[in-house]
Amino acid sequence: MTDLQQALTVAVEAARTAGAIHLAHLGKAHQVRSKSTFSDLVTEVDALAEAAIRRVIADTFPEHAVLGEEEGLGGAADAWFRWIVDPLDGTVNYAHGFPVFCASVALEVGGERVVGAVFDPNRQELFTATRGGGAFLNGQSLRVSATPTLTTPALVSTGFPYDASGGRNLRLVERLLRLGVPVRRPGAAALDLCNVACGRMDAYWEIGLKPWDSAAGSLIVQEAGGTVTDAQGQPGPYGAMLIATNGHLHAELLALLHEAAPPAEEA
Amino acid sequence: MTDLQQALTVAVEAARTAGAIHLAHLGKAHQVRSKSTFSDLVTEVDALAEAAIRRVIADTFPEHAVLGEEEGLGGAADAWFRWIVDPLDGTVNYAHGFPVFCASVALEVGGERVVGAVFDPNRQELFTATRGGGAFLNGQSLRVSATPTLTTPALVSTGFPYDASGGRNLRLVERLLRLGVPVRRPGAAALDLCNVACGRMDAYWEIGLKPWDSAAGSLIVQEAGGTVTDAQGQPGPYGAMLIATNGHLHAELLALLHEAAPPAEEA
Repeated sequence: MTDLQQALTVAVEAARTAGAIHLAHLGKAHQVRSKSTFSDLVTEVDALAEAAIRRVIADTFPEHAVLGEEEGLGGAADAWFRWIVDPLDGTVNYAHGFPVFCASVALEVGGERVVGAVFDPNRQELFTATRGGGAFLNGQSLRVSATPTLTTPALVSTGFPYDASGGRNLRLVERLLRLGVPVRRPGAAALDLCNVACGRMDAYWEIGLKPWDSAAGSLIVQEAGGTVTDAQGQPGPYGAMLIATNGHLHAELLALLHEAAPPAEEA
Repeated sequence: MTDLQQALTVAVEAARTAGAIHLAHLGKAHQVRSKSTFSDLVTEVDALAEAAIRRVIADTFPEHAVLGEEEGLGGAADAWFRWIVDPLDGTVNYAHGFPVFCASVALEVGGERVVGAVFDPNRQELFTATRGGGAFLNGQSLRVSATPTLTTPALVSTGFPYDASGGRNLRLVERLLRLGVPVRRPGAAALDLCNVACGRMDAYWEIGLKPWDSAAGSLIVQEAGGTVTDAQGQPGPYGAMLIATNGHLHAELLALLHEAAPPAEEA
């Protein structure tokens, strides 16, 4: 049996190690100052950060499987202990030097997420959670906001897909704006989730996320007292759509989504 | 004759003083942790920060006029020296504790903007410019990005108006997304402009800005080598629409705007 606190320690070390790599290479890039070299840089930093995370995990848990954005699944497909890793969430921001990006590390045991760590190297903010143990920002207990309704108004964030589902997403954005609800789009899914967890945002939704985008952040939201579901109000997987809120305005946002941008149009 | 360097020193002191007020009160608010008290807080912080900025300006330039978001115009309407002040840009973010906000201070002489200072207290970043003297971030010379086209891809940001023009704006967002151009919406106009100036963003546009939103930031973009115009490609005022780019992709973004969201629909 893996001890959750030991696993959390490893998750934190892995996320911090990745964040240090982000900053070290971003500094180099700013010296070069040529944006055409940025995409090579992102590929390199993604790979370096994921390799570093895998090393940190393997040092303590050599038998665990690791699913990462870059290298895919290492270990058995039916592994009981599986880490889910995004070595650099917000790669587009990173590629442009826009300082909104992070590293995300989560552990699933028997298919249930039990540990999550998200590290924002720009703000030096570490968000953590263990199943049943609460959520924390730099060691301080976290709680979602108390905002009761969307029109309080709430502050909500989203992501913009580039495919056909983008139009559907923008219809929900337009509906929210017409209700006077401010919408933000910072560009890093794991941080969007952490912003909901600590009450800076009241809600967040996004279409087409990958498992590593939401694995740690969704647990952090839940452990901070928030609600995370798919578009039908069901627990994950959140591949088609993820909706994370402070809980209070979850049903309201779900209803608005179905009205403004019915999932049926997704096909 | 006012010396530009002396005016810049005053602008910087004013912006930094406002930023210190932002952070001091945000700390208090987080202790309270009740979002219903946030809007009172914002009103209070806006007023305190603007009063502090006006004091700093009046200490050195008691005869200058000051146009501020909160108190309106102080001094003669036809004053030769006129400061344009946003004591807290990004108030909605601030009200929710989302750490994307700033103070913006500019000086116009004979209707021409000659000094600008924007201070981001969260990142402790000070953006400055004097007409003909270049733009700086914490004293380091700034330059816009070299990104040649929107589909490089560029990273662009926008604001979301809440009125009917919001739909028009979202049509341009949708067009950009379909071209594969990532769009961000951080929520503080003066910082959006500074992000273009330092190359973190390649372009930014927004409908319905007020003079204090863009006074300092537009000068900082221009002095960093960028281009700022209205929707017709003309110099300000930028009330109907402001478009700021690195220069290289300005014509491309203007053309896309007229195609995707013709200004004629605005009426």
